[in-house]
Amino acid sequence: MQADSVNNAATKQIITQVLNAWTAENKKVTDFFSKYADDVYMQEIAEGRNRAIYLLGHLVAVNDALLPLMGFGERLYPELEQPFLRSADRTTEHSYTVADLKQKWQEVNELLSTHFAKLEPSDWLDRHMSVSPEDFAKEPHRNRLNVILGRTNHQASHMGQLNLLHKHALAD
Amino acid sequence: MQADSVNNAATKQIITQVLNAWTAENKKVTDFFSKYADDVYMQEIAEGRNRAIYLLGHLVAVNDALLPLMGFGERLYPELEQPFLRSADRTTEHSYTVADLKQKWQEVNELLSTHFAKLEPSDWLDRHMSVSPEDFAKEPHRNRLNVILGRTNHQASHMGQLNLLHKHALAD
Repeated sequence: MQADSVNNAATKQIITQVLNAWTAENKKVTDFFSKYADDVYMQEIAEGRNRAIYLLGHLVAVNDALLPLMGFGERLYPELEQPFLRSADRTTEHSYTVADLKQKWQEVNELLSTHFAKLEPSDWLDRHMSVSPEDFAKEPHRNRLNVILGRTNHQASHMGQLNLLHKHALAD
Repeated sequence: MQADSVNNAATKQIITQVLNAWTAENKKVTDFFSKYADDVYMQEIAEGRNRAIYLLGHLVAVNDALLPLMGFGERLYPELEQPFLRSADRTTEHSYTVADLKQKWQEVNELLSTHFAKLEPSDWLDRHMSVSPEDFAKEPHRNRLNVILGRTNHQASHMGQLNLLHKHALAD
């Protein structure tokens, strides 16, 4: 795509809107995990389902994996992959506390924000690192911005589940 | 915003990507409600929480309300507002069946798609009907595209909750 086509006010505005939606979903997660005492998050979101601490670890691991996927470098916490991406809740032992995971959530998101702020519209429309240049030429929607659109919905989906804990916790 | 700034390949591509994400979330809901016998959707997504049929009615009512919000005309089913937007589940009596709501879901979404297909990039970046021209001049992100970004996340949030029924139903 030609640079003069990409660098225009409309494109910039829409990219900003997509990023604002991403940031808003991240903030919902941050706010949710700031609401109660840490032990509340050891509860399941519903009977027999994931605990809130597991979903937090899962969301940290997913955001951390954006670093290599977006071409920003290595993950900060690859050790989260086994307990929170490859394993269901309570099937891999780990010693992470809610406080640990909240700190990692903040660090990963701050690093992502720093990188995002440096990207130009043409970078957002460039390929992400899981698609080859050849495939990207055929499928130009497989760009960085699409990753953010997908991940925003993924976060919203888990936030919907976390909100079930909300009333649960209040009822205790 | 100048028309020559809006009508370019990059802007069109990003708008298409945002709409594809919206369509994908709608499809998840459609697929979910095509998976089981209708009586399964009378179950709660978790103990003491919303039933799946309520969430379906809720999502139909929310999408239906996009018609006036996007400036496409009146809602098809304003009667859904009371039981599914203004009332919590099981607090307003109604006689809608899962089959009724699935049909309304399809009709509303088809009508929205027809209208969406006619919009130009400049229409997507124009105000939605809940913001005045004066406020829109100060807050240009309050456009039609932003409504879709927000509603996509809203659907994803409820889809995350509906997915809890999934395993529940399988375990029955």
